[in-house]
Amino acid sequence: MEETFVPFRGIKNDLKGRLKCYKQDWTGGFRAGFRILAPTTYIFFASAIPVISFGEQLERNTNGALTAVQTLASTALCGIIHSIVGGQPLLILGVAEPTVLMYTFMFNFAKDRKDLGEKLFLAWTGWVCAWTALLLFLLSILGACSIINRFTRIAGELFGLLIAMLFMQQAIRGVVEEFGIPERENPNQMSLQPSWRFGNGMFALVLSFGLLYTGLRSRKARSWRYGSGSLRGFIADYGVPLMVLVWTAVSYIPVNSVPRGIPRRLFSPNPWSPGAYSNWTIVKEMLDVPPLYIVGAFIPATMIAVLYYFDHSVASQLAQQKEFNLKKPPSYHYDLLLLGFLTILCGLIGIPPSNGVIPQSPMHTKSLATLKHQLLRNKLVSTARKSLQRNSNLSQLYRNMQEAYDEMQTPLVYQMPPALGLKEMKESTIELASSSGYIDAPVDETVFDVDKDIDDLLPVEVKEQRLSNLLQALMVGGCVAAMPLLKKIPTSVLWGYFAFMAIENLPGNQFWERILLLFTAPSRRYKVLEENHATFIETVPFKSIAAFTLFQTVYLLLCFGITWIPIAGVLFPLLIMLLVPVRQYLLPKFFKAVHLQDLDAAEYEEAPAISYNMTFEERAIDIDGGEILDEMITRSRGEIRHSQSPKITSSTPTSLEDKRSPHSPSMQRAYSPRVRELRVERSPSLSGKGLEVKKVPSPGPSNLGQSSNGSSPC
Amino acid sequence: MEETFVPFRGIKNDLKGRLKCYKQDWTGGFRAGFRILAPTTYIFFASAIPVISFGEQLERNTNGALTAVQTLASTALCGIIHSIVGGQPLLILGVAEPTVLMYTFMFNFAKDRKDLGEKLFLAWTGWVCAWTALLLFLLSILGACSIINRFTRIAGELFGLLIAMLFMQQAIRGVVEEFGIPERENPNQMSLQPSWRFGNGMFALVLSFGLLYTGLRSRKARSWRYGSGSLRGFIADYGVPLMVLVWTAVSYIPVNSVPRGIPRRLFSPNPWSPGAYSNWTIVKEMLDVPPLYIVGAFIPATMIAVLYYFDHSVASQLAQQKEFNLKKPPSYHYDLLLLGFLTILCGLIGIPPSNGVIPQSPMHTKSLATLKHQLLRNKLVSTARKSLQRNSNLSQLYRNMQEAYDEMQTPLVYQMPPALGLKEMKESTIELASSSGYIDAPVDETVFDVDKDIDDLLPVEVKEQRLSNLLQALMVGGCVAAMPLLKKIPTSVLWGYFAFMAIENLPGNQFWERILLLFTAPSRRYKVLEENHATFIETVPFKSIAAFTLFQTVYLLLCFGITWIPIAGVLFPLLIMLLVPVRQYLLPKFFKAVHLQDLDAAEYEEAPAISYNMTFEERAIDIDGGEILDEMITRSRGEIRHSQSPKITSSTPTSLEDKRSPHSPSMQRAYSPRVRELRVERSPSLSGKGLEVKKVPSPGPSNLGQSSNGSSPC
Repeated sequence: MEETFVPFRGIKNDLKGRLKCYKQDWTGGFRAGFRILAPTTYIFFASAIPVISFGEQLERNTNGALTAVQTLASTALCGIIHSIVGGQPLLILGVAEPTVLMYTFMFNFAKDRKDLGEKLFLAWTGWVCAWTALLLFLLSILGACSIINRFTRIAGELFGLLIAMLFMQQAIRGVVEEFGIPERENPNQMSLQPSWRFGNGMFALVLSFGLLYTGLRSRKARSWRYGSGSLRGFIADYGVPLMVLVWTAVSYIPVNSVPRGIPRRLFSPNPWSPGAYSNWTIVKEMLDVPPLYIVGAFIPATMIAVLYYFDHSVASQLAQQKEFNLKKPPSYHYDLLLLGFLTILCGLIGIPPSNGVIPQSPMHTKSLATLKHQLLRNKLVSTARKSLQRNSNLSQLYRNMQEAYDEMQTPLVYQMPPALGLKEMKESTIELASSSGYIDAPVDETVFDVDKDIDDLLPVEVKEQRLSNLLQALMVGGCVAAMPLLKKIPTSVLWGYFAFMAIENLPGNQFWERILLLFTAPSRRYKVLEENHATFIETVPFKSIAAFTLFQTVYLLLCFGITWIPIAGVLFPLLIMLLVPVRQYLLPKFFKAVHLQDLDAAEYEEAPAISYNMTFEERAIDIDGGEILDEMITRSRGEIRHSQSPKITSSTPTSLEDKRSPHSPSMQRAYSPRVRELRVERSPSLSGKGLEVKKVPSPGPSNLGQSSNGSSPC
Repeated sequence: MEETFVPFRGIKNDLKGRLKCYKQDWTGGFRAGFRILAPTTYIFFASAIPVISFGEQLERNTNGALTAVQTLASTALCGIIHSIVGGQPLLILGVAEPTVLMYTFMFNFAKDRKDLGEKLFLAWTGWVCAWTALLLFLLSILGACSIINRFTRIAGELFGLLIAMLFMQQAIRGVVEEFGIPERENPNQMSLQPSWRFGNGMFALVLSFGLLYTGLRSRKARSWRYGSGSLRGFIADYGVPLMVLVWTAVSYIPVNSVPRGIPRRLFSPNPWSPGAYSNWTIVKEMLDVPPLYIVGAFIPATMIAVLYYFDHSVASQLAQQKEFNLKKPPSYHYDLLLLGFLTILCGLIGIPPSNGVIPQSPMHTKSLATLKHQLLRNKLVSTARKSLQRNSNLSQLYRNMQEAYDEMQTPLVYQMPPALGLKEMKESTIELASSSGYIDAPVDETVFDVDKDIDDLLPVEVKEQRLSNLLQALMVGGCVAAMPLLKKIPTSVLWGYFAFMAIENLPGNQFWERILLLFTAPSRRYKVLEENHATFIETVPFKSIAAFTLFQTVYLLLCFGITWIPIAGVLFPLLIMLLVPVRQYLLPKFFKAVHLQDLDAAEYEEAPAISYNMTFEERAIDIDGGEILDEMITRSRGEIRHSQSPKITSSTPTSLEDKRSPHSPSMQRAYSPRVRELRVERSPSLSGKGLEVKKVPSPGPSNLGQSSNGSSPC
């Protein structure tokens, strides 16, 4: 992305880019059919459950001025608007923890002022939102988002881990509170006697750990040994919502003599309860706010604006990481502008505003990549089967598959020529086949194993469309009406779900992998390399890795610590933004430039990448689509290996669009040679020593004997 | 083993064989040093915990006539005597569930008789034990154990799974009972109010699942990525006892306002409490038993004798399975004779007798195999390191290692010439090395990687000695004195431990693997083959496997069902013994002979095996000793592949001693060609298709290109 600060240029570029694919954003979504429901449900739960629990938190903190009804309404409203007129439809909007913290602080401030008080609190927040929106407009128009590429991996991953810590903290705190007396309840009721509280707490432990464990296991269902493929796929896609249902059902098992209120369940007024809708007309009271407070609202507004600017942009960035191979352009400036409008809208109807959320946004992209993979796979498998029935030869087969693949492609201007990856691999295959005399013979399943080989052909692609985002937002909206049903979910299941979200998003975070590396026995460090293709382990001395990771960890703990400070806590995004200059000016003084590039590649520091190897290991012979994809997405995160070319300190001139075009060398590399790990297991005695084969490029088997350690006796 | 029924011949043979190695049984144990404590502690817990809990069960069932003090005393006493004068020291003795069932039945019978009553109950069981001992003497002298080889895999594995089911049943029942009111307690006390009972039950769920999960995880510590090798080894060796401590500590966390008795802990009188030692002088009252009952005692005695005959022999058999490569002879007849003496001894002092227990006995052997492996490995690694420092060449290196290995070997008459496995592999290695010109060059770590290659050289061997058995028995005896400490363990931790024992012993049970196979998706069945080398999957049609497994499952459920019948329940061993004729005469009518041999090899049905391939797969490059061993032991169980030679119905003439001698073809094969799976992962496109390499014999890499599917294009 260009670092341009010419007013409106960023917004104009964004609009231009997104408008071109606007129609396809919808048609593409509808063409996916009912399968779109898998990512939709997955994201709906990931989005709704925290929002409900934040709503409960807000209710406690604001004496009921705001409840889960309002947080759900905001998430749904902003989600619907963003999915229809927003720039990047992969971005998921929602009321986030920092917003809750901000609103709590503002409530505590307002309730103690005589001329404001609880009564005018919401009207005052309307003014705060108005100022925030103004600041967001300014930031957006002046192109503040063009410095988004200065948020390097170090900032994004640190923020990701911080969010994971906050989620985990909420999970632990929630379970601990199950043993205590909730504030709003009457402490004399039976279920709050010490004995029942003890039972309730223990039950909460069972329910939350149950959900956490089964949720994590079900996500891996695709690689289970048992059950049919479609059942496994279903469990992997819908396992988490299913587990919420299952554990909610379990919570109803103890009936005998167990009093109502055990386990504790969601508490939220129905939207039609009296008082639950007083907020909607808050705009009428906004002029009652004393002028001093109207001006003073600017102070919290700056904090919220900084927070939203950072949070929204980083969520968007994480949803559009390189390894997803997105084909449609980003839209940082325009989305920030839209966020401004959404903020003022929410302010005027007295609900807390939503912004782009982590980890839901990257989760969304990931689930859409799985969807796309399945769709492509089904199409290609059926085409290949047809060709096999017609006794086609190998090149006919590929021609047919190529056509089918092309049909599935989005006809966009800036998009890569269709199916480069497919084409290149096809060529190398045909080359090999012809050299072995297979080219004209009719292929059969022994040469081309439909199920297995098609997985190998498919690159990572994402079903980029607006439908899943719109549907999940509508479903969140539906939650407002379904409140009586939602109230059946035990709170402990929510805490388990929080822990699930925290853990589910750790793998692939290179910062996390490096923390683990510090605890890994030296003799097993190669395993990290094997699993995550973290090339830095090979190129950077362990001491530097450790120092870098320790610095990052201390910084993370600092950020985490700041969130504990009652009022200054909301400033924690500033600390993360401070990482930008720290990374740019301070870190290079302590670490070698080449090491820094391997640990935290910054675009502004380097020449265009020239060796991006999409290395991945194929573990088992028969792997489901989603299974392989899970690995590719997780693994490839760490593997963007930059050439150790002389440091170039100017920022790269290529725009993001260019980067995604297939003509840039880095992307062509991404698809072509596909080096794969080929682990030949050593034969039992020393004699096997020379057989260790590490990496063999796909086009020919001639390198099979190549030894990785150079001491091959054969 | 010969099927000879000449009186005393079996006992004489056993004694002759075991006396030869008696001295080495002790010296070998002491030479292992403090490391012997790992298997000792492991088995001590596996032995003591069920015995304690059976004691609690007995106490409830016999109104306190027998308690955990008596069951522990019996286990310790019989264990000490057996470990010193017993035949097979790998066999672990203990009070088992069937004994508890028998004693419960006898108590219920006795308490209702006026002329017997609770008072004379123990004296009467003295008579029962006397009759049982007589029957055991007869069985032993007449050579009943020579038909032990008619108990094929089908019987042994079915019994193993039945025991696992009984353990799991006890675990589930135990946890469920934590929600209820225990019989002996005063139901009005505070901790038995409904609210506290609910809390206690939930806490029990947390504790038992906690122990189960962490226990299972800690056993796999050797393959963890984190922590140093010695830490991982320590956790794998002592993890389960450690977890019992940890979860007991956790059970003390809730103190505030939680009444005593939550969680429930072990209940047992201290051995010095009044009344807890009335049993020891029961012999004085034995003549008070009316003569009719003395004669009538013969009826339960026959049942117990059959039970002990079967249980003791099968436990011994499972502890001496082929894949352990034991070098010392078995001792079925003599051990049964000794069991007779132990039974009458226990009867006279009024404690329930012990017999050989499953799964502790095979667990014992397995843990000793790990120990032996570690000892051998340490020795060879240090030797190899020294040689490398002295710049030896490859053959010098091997000579040194051979010497070191020989030193570790037991100098026994019937033992294989030392280190056949090591020798053969050395030869093939040297051959290969010389052909590549490496033979005279000094070796370095690139040619011979000490840590990795030594693992490959080592065959499965077991540290066969008496010390671990003696020590664990002494520790069980120590439990009697440590009763006040043991009472701190929550019962729920025991239930978790029961579940752990049930699950820990499932892998490697081919019957269990076949049940899992029925639920495996057809496309993933190859995975079972990969993991367990269950050759039957390749040779037997799936329908036959399914039919065989279903038959076995129904039979298992039948046995399990019978244990539920109040009195007839004790007859369940008869049902398992019935499997012998069923297997021999009925099954061959429904299954093809070759399939039956693959599914359930019976020695009496076949020619001497000629292809016993010790196939195993090496998963990662750097694997700890114990880790590889875990796999070898588990995997190799299923892989004894018999040639499909014409069925020979006479029993094989080779004695068990012969079978273990290295001169028999089957054992030589066991060590020599060591076929190893060499999975070459397919390269990403079709071109890789031909590269699939399945099995390559070790001596030369020339077969590398051999394709498994015969359609190799290269």
